[in-house]
Amino acid sequence: MKKLWSGRFKENTEKTVEKFTESLSFDVRLWEYDIEGSIAHVKMLGKQKIIPRKDVKAIIKGLEEIRMEIESGEFDFLESLEDVHMNIEHALIEKIGPVGGKLHTARSRNDQVALDSRLFLRAETNEILGLIKDFQSVIVSAAEKNLDVVMPGYTHLQRAQPVLLSHYLLSYYEMLERDSGRFEDCLKRVNVLPLGSAALAGTTLPVDREYVARLLKFPAISENSIDTVSDRDFFIEFIAASSTLMVHLSRFSEEMIIWNSEEFGFTELPDAFTTGSSIMPQKKNPDVLELTRGKTGRVFGNLMSILTVMKGLPLAYNRDMQEDKEPLFDTVDTVKSCLGVLLRMVPEIHFNSEKMKSATEDGFLTATDIAEYLVKKGMPFREAHSVTGGLVKYCIDNKKTLLELKLVELKKYSKLIGADIYKYISVNASVSGKKSIGGTSEKMVLARIKKIKSKK
Amino acid sequence: MKKLWSGRFKENTEKTVEKFTESLSFDVRLWEYDIEGSIAHVKMLGKQKIIPRKDVKAIIKGLEEIRMEIESGEFDFLESLEDVHMNIEHALIEKIGPVGGKLHTARSRNDQVALDSRLFLRAETNEILGLIKDFQSVIVSAAEKNLDVVMPGYTHLQRAQPVLLSHYLLSYYEMLERDSGRFEDCLKRVNVLPLGSAALAGTTLPVDREYVARLLKFPAISENSIDTVSDRDFFIEFIAASSTLMVHLSRFSEEMIIWNSEEFGFTELPDAFTTGSSIMPQKKNPDVLELTRGKTGRVFGNLMSILTVMKGLPLAYNRDMQEDKEPLFDTVDTVKSCLGVLLRMVPEIHFNSEKMKSATEDGFLTATDIAEYLVKKGMPFREAHSVTGGLVKYCIDNKKTLLELKLVELKKYSKLIGADIYKYISVNASVSGKKSIGGTSEKMVLARIKKIKSKK
Amino acid sequence: MKKLWSGRFKENTEKTVEKFTESLSFDVRLWEYDIEGSIAHVKMLGKQKIIPRKDVKAIIKGLEEIRMEIESGEFDFLESLEDVHMNIEHALIEKIGPVGGKLHTARSRNDQVALDSRLFLRAETNEILGLIKDFQSVIVSAAEKNLDVVMPGYTHLQRAQPVLLSHYLLSYYEMLERDSGRFEDCLKRVNVLPLGSAALAGTTLPVDREYVARLLKFPAISENSIDTVSDRDFFIEFIAASSTLMVHLSRFSEEMIIWNSEEFGFTELPDAFTTGSSIMPQKKNPDVLELTRGKTGRVFGNLMSILTVMKGLPLAYNRDMQEDKEPLFDTVDTVKSCLGVLLRMVPEIHFNSEKMKSATEDGFLTATDIAEYLVKKGMPFREAHSVTGGLVKYCIDNKKTLLELKLVELKKYSKLIGADIYKYISVNASVSGKKSIGGTSEKMVLARIKKIKSKK
Amino acid sequence: MKKLWSGRFKENTEKTVEKFTESLSFDVRLWEYDIEGSIAHVKMLGKQKIIPRKDVKAIIKGLEEIRMEIESGEFDFLESLEDVHMNIEHALIEKIGPVGGKLHTARSRNDQVALDSRLFLRAETNEILGLIKDFQSVIVSAAEKNLDVVMPGYTHLQRAQPVLLSHYLLSYYEMLERDSGRFEDCLKRVNVLPLGSAALAGTTLPVDREYVARLLKFPAISENSIDTVSDRDFFIEFIAASSTLMVHLSRFSEEMIIWNSEEFGFTELPDAFTTGSSIMPQKKNPDVLELTRGKTGRVFGNLMSILTVMKGLPLAYNRDMQEDKEPLFDTVDTVKSCLGVLLRMVPEIHFNSEKMKSATEDGFLTATDIAEYLVKKGMPFREAHSVTGGLVKYCIDNKKTLLELKLVELKKYSKLIGADIYKYISVNASVSGKKSIGGTSEKMVLARIKKIKSKK
Repeated sequence: MKKLWSGRFKENTEKTVEKFTESLSFDVRLWEYDIEGSIAHVKMLGKQKIIPRKDVKAIIKGLEEIRMEIESGEFDFLESLEDVHMNIEHALIEKIGPVGGKLHTARSRNDQVALDSRLFLRAETNEILGLIKDFQSVIVSAAEKNLDVVMPGYTHLQRAQPVLLSHYLLSYYEMLERDSGRFEDCLKRVNVLPLGSAALAGTTLPVDREYVARLLKFPAISENSIDTVSDRDFFIEFIAASSTLMVHLSRFSEEMIIWNSEEFGFTELPDAFTTGSSIMPQKKNPDVLELTRGKTGRVFGNLMSILTVMKGLPLAYNRDMQEDKEPLFDTVDTVKSCLGVLLRMVPEIHFNSEKMKSATEDGFLTATDIAEYLVKKGMPFREAHSVTGGLVKYCIDNKKTLLELKLVELKKYSKLIGADIYKYISVNASVSGKKSIGGTSEKMVLARIKKIKSKK
Repeated sequence: MKKLWSGRFKENTEKTVEKFTESLSFDVRLWEYDIEGSIAHVKMLGKQKIIPRKDVKAIIKGLEEIRMEIESGEFDFLESLEDVHMNIEHALIEKIGPVGGKLHTARSRNDQVALDSRLFLRAETNEILGLIKDFQSVIVSAAEKNLDVVMPGYTHLQRAQPVLLSHYLLSYYEMLERDSGRFEDCLKRVNVLPLGSAALAGTTLPVDREYVARLLKFPAISENSIDTVSDRDFFIEFIAASSTLMVHLSRFSEEMIIWNSEEFGFTELPDAFTTGSSIMPQKKNPDVLELTRGKTGRVFGNLMSILTVMKGLPLAYNRDMQEDKEPLFDTVDTVKSCLGVLLRMVPEIHFNSEKMKSATEDGFLTATDIAEYLVKKGMPFREAHSVTGGLVKYCIDNKKTLLELKLVELKKYSKLIGADIYKYISVNASVSGKKSIGGTSEKMVLARIKKIKSKK
Repeated sequence: MKKLWSGRFKENTEKTVEKFTESLSFDVRLWEYDIEGSIAHVKMLGKQKIIPRKDVKAIIKGLEEIRMEIESGEFDFLESLEDVHMNIEHALIEKIGPVGGKLHTARSRNDQVALDSRLFLRAETNEILGLIKDFQSVIVSAAEKNLDVVMPGYTHLQRAQPVLLSHYLLSYYEMLERDSGRFEDCLKRVNVLPLGSAALAGTTLPVDREYVARLLKFPAISENSIDTVSDRDFFIEFIAASSTLMVHLSRFSEEMIIWNSEEFGFTELPDAFTTGSSIMPQKKNPDVLELTRGKTGRVFGNLMSILTVMKGLPLAYNRDMQEDKEPLFDTVDTVKSCLGVLLRMVPEIHFNSEKMKSATEDGFLTATDIAEYLVKKGMPFREAHSVTGGLVKYCIDNKKTLLELKLVELKKYSKLIGADIYKYISVNASVSGKKSIGGTSEKMVLARIKKIKSKK
Repeated sequence: MKKLWSGRFKENTEKTVEKFTESLSFDVRLWEYDIEGSIAHVKMLGKQKIIPRKDVKAIIKGLEEIRMEIESGEFDFLESLEDVHMNIEHALIEKIGPVGGKLHTARSRNDQVALDSRLFLRAETNEILGLIKDFQSVIVSAAEKNLDVVMPGYTHLQRAQPVLLSHYLLSYYEMLERDSGRFEDCLKRVNVLPLGSAALAGTTLPVDREYVARLLKFPAISENSIDTVSDRDFFIEFIAASSTLMVHLSRFSEEMIIWNSEEFGFTELPDAFTTGSSIMPQKKNPDVLELTRGKTGRVFGNLMSILTVMKGLPLAYNRDMQEDKEPLFDTVDTVKSCLGVLLRMVPEIHFNSEKMKSATEDGFLTATDIAEYLVKKGMPFREAHSVTGGLVKYCIDNKKTLLELKLVELKKYSKLIGADIYKYISVNASVSGKKSIGGTSEKMVLARIKKIKSKK
């Protein structure tokens, strides 16, 4: 019979379906967790006398051999066996005979996949937590190194008030600290043993889930078998936490890209992290930063992807859920590579302190300090605010800076102004006066650095 | 001069811009938190002698009056005053004179907005946590009430194994428990005092942030002024947690909609929660469930919205961030209304236990139990799995159920099968045998219910 | 019986459900299209003799009165009547008696909602097309006005080559032209009559759909009744087109925000479109641009929202689809307000041509022109590229610009260089040499402007 | 020097950056378009005498050799050469010497990437259009084959009115027809020549863009060089069109999954497209449909990803845009594989016409027909609607179907009812009466099929 679709395809149907449904091409990545989980599972089967001790030994030996074969690249994964789990079980039976068929006792692929995913995500999250900590160290070091650099703090990309570069840098420390918190909280919900839920109803065999949990270092055990095989919350939560982290990295990247423009000129980026142009050697394209900013998109996309997959799925396992792993893996890889490259780059960034300093000097960045000076003299803030506005306007009209104004000129705007005002309206005074907790004065910044370091 | 855009608009420019930039129409919702925050702030200003005690009193009195006016609906909010904060401050000055202008001392709209948002989100999150708890109670009650109802557990929307309806219902308890966990974790990061960060650099006035934190019951204080006014992580985290909650509610809704079809007939939905058709009175459209499933979309949309807003924004405050509140408010309202309506609906759902029971009786849902029976007799699982497959095929070919098979027929498939097998392959035996932790047996379900109730 | 949810709510169930399911609060916006559609429908019923002519007259008279009442604000919409359609039909029956009940003959709310949505979206899309055209005119005017302004073209936010400001501005003309194309294409699929599909199966009454289509100016009629009431493609397509438009507006905004920084100083934004700070009058916060950039997020969110709603919905109508309108309405409003405010703003932007010009003068922006000069002399491009790189490096090391190099210095790098090179490496020569179609020379820019203007 | 990040990485910095920034691993896929574009470009360079004819010949010969090497798998792509473009140019120079360096004359990677992407997307879109057409043919065939099958049409997953299965199936034809329309419209904007825009400003060399357009069969040429290298609209538009297509495929999949449940039993899916369970051979898991439904998520995710990447990017090229290709490629692959597998599957689906028919027989699916009967007799619709409601209620109370009612019973509800009513209220009469355009009668369905076939 001539096919209706006019021979556009060369493959036969079976092959098409096989290719459409296989997951080996991506879940192969879980192999070591699959083996780890299987070994714990089979130990439990032995302890519970569900299978004989000698079978346990044979199975473990077989799995260890498979592990070595995979590590050394000798193992042949077959796409026709669909996924990593079937590949390993199949190889085990090939190797040790029918006794290998006892491994899957009291287990289903549904709880097995959940287990492998949790082991994987636990390991990767811990690695990411380490990278965040490293990046935080890099930031703290940069903050310590640049303690004397003053720059304009911006709102609306308009110069607003002078701040310490260190203070600016440490703001990213705080963001990353919250990111760590989110990943750690996520980990609590990742770190729950699913195995023993079987297909969806539990098992009639006398398994000891607590023992498996101890072997695999899970502090908790899932409480409902149906929920366990249906649950991908931890994928969503991880990718959501990653999205927020990427928001932070994209903000940092955006800012460094702007600072790297000839017009700002606040930074010189290390050669190794930019691409030049052989035709314009002065050009330093901040590719790493642009790519980091761009990669934010893929993580947001992954989040939308997993949310869409899970929306409205009836319980328990549905094959749609096979679409969960690629967004997870891609998110893990993206987050790790972005953190990894930024933490190498930041220590090499040169900050042009002169350029930053001079950018604080026009623009009346200390106007707010005059208002606060007047408040200290008793003037209501709104009035002080308005008086200062008048003063700045006078300066603009007369092409003067605030520091250039004479006392008589100042006094025209308010009798409360005295000679002591000059102490308040220099850039340095403005910065060092911000002694409120979390403020930009050297004192507070140093206090924060000290506190951060003492935590480790 | 004739405008280029050919008079399509009637409003003049100023009005257009005013309307484009105003936030009063939505941030008015924050008014009570704005007043609460202002009162705490001004108390601190007094305590720190930044403004005189008598001014503090006047300001608090004025704010309390404004509070009453707003509550009673007498207060006139003016769009021309842009936002809720300016409206209240403006009214205060109108009411008590220039001394009202002292309220904004050592404060900026940047940290004030952050404060109001945090107070709002803290209150709403607590309310949502209460609703989740209520919904969980409703589920536990339904589970207790239906302990004797057996139904097919599904995978791929195909009948897989018999489970208790109670067990199925409790799986939603577990999902909600994780949701609670996420909202509580989010709350840790919401519950941090931002006030005192001023515009972005801190203040030179001797504020006491710890005192304000105590007054407003914040267990922590933000550590970096630039970060504080730039941070909207807690919006993202809240909406992400809400998205996951909505995934759960959408799954529940989908399933109840399917169960409510004539073909399934597992449920009868309460009249008050469905719409009928006056022309087809037998029809019960599950509108509430469909809307809940649909509203998942708006929460996902809100998440994408806030992520997009924040991506790549340079520090510190940018006006883009005004676009943060509507997705947050809409998410709060959606989550609360969905939980509120579902928790009222679930107790009124009638489950057709007969229909559910009979659905477990064909379909060989206890096939896995035969396999586990054989495993107990010593057969490797993979072999047992294959033997059972043969048995089921035999039943299909001969139009019998598993229970109808005679021992001689069974023994043809394996000599290990004995007369005791009949104890294992009834639906009830299948269910009651699942005694692994988290399994579907009455024993384990009751144990779980007991544990849940003891926690409260 | 004490409710399980402990009285957290004050409203009773019925009220809660009513509020949860009502759509009047947003679909009221469709009222005029509802009346327009009903009038056409009832005319057809008369023409086909499905109802008597005199009933047609009475119904149209009643509908016209309702139209006037709504316009004048006298009409009372009742939330208890759920939606705008029931409100109008109910008022009609109140007004003209049972004959009003004939209006809904051969119609269902399913095809009625589809009709109103299509009429609404057709009108709004046409309005948006008009706004885009207006914005394009504004851009062309600005391009004409600034024909002599040279600025650096950027890649990676690094100065790359000199271009005309007009050329830069016109790039937005092209983007908007594609946006128009997308909205027009979308309109083809919006502009299809759904009425006559009834609930989902069509009707047994002898309706004349072609006549209704003519009355309502629909060039096409939907071909399948099930599809017609299930279809929300045109919502998705419209919001997707809007998302791309917002990408363009966000890019423009981003760039204008950067240009508005003190560091770039390329623009002065009109006062009416910025917010100042009374304390720092020199500050011009580009709020309108920031909000436009931020509002991109809400349109992306709306897209994700409608996609999520529609994903996996079985045919035909499901109540989830009630969640379609708010994202649509919000997108329409956002797009219109952003276009409306930008097209007013752009003519008022002052471009600092001096600052732009001087930014082209260092940075070796004409290096590529040297390479092309060498190519013209016969050198392979890759070699020319490398020779130019050497020259620029020499300039940097010797703190010279390209124009300051003497012929002997130049010739050291290639004998092909002759005295004519100086004609090629000035900024003006570089610009005016780009005579390829779409290039930045005045000639090509003028040609493009001429072509654009001739199209109107 | 000890690195701050404590040796977590083994690779050195350069390698990390290289890996972070390379695009070869995915853009290698563009190789054939890169060669095709280069050949056209170099022909033009020759024609314009920008390079000598003999160089043109040498370059083309070299490129053709490279093409063959890649096709035969002999070509070594080097990651260190970053991307596919540099790999090919580098190989060309290796092969034919410095003259190969003339290929890149009057071209930049910016316009080259744009060209390759457009050629790729044009080819793929055409392939997708072919697949859609094939899938439509499959649907029309299935509709023709099942013309006599009646089934319940659903709203809210509740049986509503009887319809033809063919009519239901054809609703997907219409959706796909709109999808085709969107892809074709998108193609108009893809099918524009970017080459000749160079880096961003155009070129000073006398290129002939119209000639290149003719060679590469582009009907249009881009009009602004800055826009051309900044534009990724066509990526967004293509992925948005794909998202809508996936909405349709997900709806079809959802419905087939529900129909495939034991409870509905409307379909039997072909073995080759389901996975069984060796333990429960009666089970047919609709994996292909579930995966299609799930893959909708990845396409939505890709859309969000590309939108996020492009949001707020300043002109012209930024490295962020390298993140454009993976979402595009993944979307192309997903759409093609889903269409490919479904168009093979649908002809093999067996529809259980008995089960469908019997589902139309209870549930009063012809109630609306009674109402329309009464309307024909002159009763206002709303009244007819209410009378019918009374009748159905009477049937329910007395456990009768509509057809079982005697005339005297019917007449109690309205004197307008005559003996002729029985002609209207059978399922068949209900279906065949729906003769409005787009209605479900055999007549209209056949007319539609005829019209569809005549279009080809």
